[in-house]
Amino acid sequence: MKGIITMDHGSGYGRTSELIESLFLASFSGTGLSDQGDSAILSIGSDHIAFTTDSFVIKPVFFPGGDIGKLAVCGTVNDLAVSGAHPRYLSCGFILEEGLPLEDLERIVASMAQTAQAGGVKIVTGDTKVVEKGSCDKLYINTAGIGTIREEYTHITNAEKVKPGDVIIINGTIAEHGLAVLSFRNSFENSIISDCTPLSGLIEKCLESGADIRFMRDATRGGIAAVLSELAVKTKTGIELFENAIPIRDEVAGLCEMLGFDPLYVANEGKVLMAVSEKEAGKVLSVLHNHPDGKNSSIMGTVTEKHPGSIVLNTSIGGRRIVDIPAGTQLPRIC
Amino acid sequence: MKGIITMDHGSGYGRTSELIESLFLASFSGTGLSDQGDSAILSIGSDHIAFTTDSFVIKPVFFPGGDIGKLAVCGTVNDLAVSGAHPRYLSCGFILEEGLPLEDLERIVASMAQTAQAGGVKIVTGDTKVVEKGSCDKLYINTAGIGTIREEYTHITNAEKVKPGDVIIINGTIAEHGLAVLSFRNSFENSIISDCTPLSGLIEKCLESGADIRFMRDATRGGIAAVLSELAVKTKTGIELFENAIPIRDEVAGLCEMLGFDPLYVANEGKVLMAVSEKEAGKVLSVLHNHPDGKNSSIMGTVTEKHPGSIVLNTSIGGRRIVDIPAGTQLPRIC
Repeated sequence: MKGIITMDHGSGYGRTSELIESLFLASFSGTGLSDQGDSAILSIGSDHIAFTTDSFVIKPVFFPGGDIGKLAVCGTVNDLAVSGAHPRYLSCGFILEEGLPLEDLERIVASMAQTAQAGGVKIVTGDTKVVEKGSCDKLYINTAGIGTIREEYTHITNAEKVKPGDVIIINGTIAEHGLAVLSFRNSFENSIISDCTPLSGLIEKCLESGADIRFMRDATRGGIAAVLSELAVKTKTGIELFENAIPIRDEVAGLCEMLGFDPLYVANEGKVLMAVSEKEAGKVLSVLHNHPDGKNSSIMGTVTEKHPGSIVLNTSIGGRRIVDIPAGTQLPRIC
Repeated sequence: MKGIITMDHGSGYGRTSELIESLFLASFSGTGLSDQGDSAILSIGSDHIAFTTDSFVIKPVFFPGGDIGKLAVCGTVNDLAVSGAHPRYLSCGFILEEGLPLEDLERIVASMAQTAQAGGVKIVTGDTKVVEKGSCDKLYINTAGIGTIREEYTHITNAEKVKPGDVIIINGTIAEHGLAVLSFRNSFENSIISDCTPLSGLIEKCLESGADIRFMRDATRGGIAAVLSELAVKTKTGIELFENAIPIRDEVAGLCEMLGFDPLYVANEGKVLMAVSEKEAGKVLSVLHNHPDGKNSSIMGTVTEKHPGSIVLNTSIGGRRIVDIPAGTQLPRIC
C-alpha cells in the first residue's frame, strides 16, 4: 500500500471504512475479524458474549458535559448496549504523557469510576504506559468491554432483520457532543453541553419491553448520517428522513447554520438509533419517553424499498435532498 | 494528588505499582478492580474467563526479532496464557499518527495476523483513531484479550498455592528483548534479537502434563526481578536465586556488564516464570525441554521461609546479595 495516514483515516467513516476493508478485514479475516458492527458476538461455552474496543483521543480532555474518562466508559458501554448486550466488564489502558498533572488524572479516573457505576459495568483490568513529553497529547485511553447477550438479540448488531416499512427512532436531540467540544475549543460562549451518557439502562428497558427492535447503533463519529448510510448500504434499503421530526435544540441548529455544519454529520455520545417494526414503535416510544435520556425521542424516518443504499432527507421547507457520506472529517479528535 | 506523571510511572513496577494502588485500585475497586495479576478472572454463566489489556508504545516500532504488532499480540496472549487461560479472542485499538506510511502499517498488521495465528487467537474487533503529526509517535496499539480458563487453574494468577520448598523455573535465556531494542536504538552492532513470542502453546503443554503449577507470570517490564519481587511480597515468602542457573547468552551478559545493566531487571517478551512443587519440577522441565521455546529451561531458584518478601541472589563467585526493586525505569518504552 502506498500513501500515508491522514486525519481523514480517523473520521470514523469514509476513509476509515476504506482502511478497515482494505487492510484490517483483509488481514484479520483469517483470524476471525468480520464486519459485524461495533461489537463482535462470540460464544463462550453455551453463552454468547459481545466484545468491543475503542481508543479515546479527544481534545481537550475536559469539555462541557464530560471528560475523556467519562467518554471512554460511555463509548464502550454504549457499543455493547446497542449490540443488544448487557454490559458487564471493562478493561482500561492508559497512555500518559510525561508531565501530566496527577490532579488531572485523578479527576479523569474518578469520572470513569462514577460513569462505570452509572453504566452498570465493572472495571476489572488495566494497563499504564508513559511516553515522553510531546509523544502524546496529555493522555489517551483505551477501553475494551465484555457484555452478555441473549440468543434472541444476537441479530441486532448485523441488521439482518431490518425491512422496508420499519421506522427509525432516535432517543433525543442531535449534534450536541460535537458542537460542545468545538465551542469549547474555540471559546464560543453558549450553553451547549455534550450529551455523553451511558445508554445501557435506557436500552435495557427498551429490550425488556419485548418490542421487535431490529437494529440499534449509537451515532458517534460521523453523526446519524454515518450510521444510517451504513445501514442503507448493508441492508440494500433506502431511508427517508423527515427534517421536522429530527430533534435538535435551537441553539445547536443555529450554530450549525452559522458555521456551515450539517448536524446530521456531527458527533453524538448519548444517542441511539433504532429500526423498529412500525406496529411496535409505540411500545418503544412509550418506554423512551419515560426515561430521562429518552424524553425527546422521535420517529425521524422510515426504511423504504425505494432508492436502495441512499438516504433522502425531506426538508422542513418541503424539498428533498440526498444525504451523502462525506469523504473527509468535519471535526477531528472528537472522541 | 499533587505532582506530575514521570517516565518512572511507566516502568511497570515501583512507581507504576504506587499509581495502581493509590489511584486505580482506590478508584475502581468499587467497580470490581482488584490486584489479582495480569488478567482478571471472571464468571460468565457457568464458565470462567480471563480478561486482560495492554497498550504498546515501543520505540522504535520495528526492532530485531519483531515489531509493535507482533509484540501487541504476544503481550496479551502471554498475559492470558500465564493466567492458566486458553487465549481465544483479541481486540485491537490503533492510535495512528498523521503521516504514518501505509506501508509500515501494512507490515505491522501482517505481523499481527501471523502472530495471532501462531498464538491461536482470533482478532475479532477493533478501532482506529488518528491524531495530528506530533501527537503520537508513529502508532500505539492496544490489545485486550479474552481466554477461557478451567476452574482448577483459576488459582495460578493469584499465587495463593505457592509454598516454601517450591522451585522457580524459567523457560530460557533472559534479558534479550530489552537489550535487542536498546542495541537497535543505539546502533550497537551485535546479534541480540528480541525473544518476543507467543507462549500459549508451550504453557498449554505444561498445564496438560498435569504438573502442579502453582504460579506463572511472564517477565516483561522490570524483568524477572519485578515478577519475583512481587511474588515474594504477595506470598510473604523469600526467594533464593542461583546465578549459575539463570540462563543468559554470553553476548547478553557481556553487554549488560559493559553498560552497567543488571539482566535480572531487563525486559523479556517470551519468558515465563513458574513456581512448581519440587517433586513435579521434572515433569514440567521435560515438557519444556521438548518445546522450541523451552530448550534452555532451568530451575533457577527456590521459594523459602527465610527472608520473607525478599529475593537473595547466590552469585556465581559464591557471594550473596539482595535483589531490590529499583524505583526508576532502566529502559523506557520497551513495550
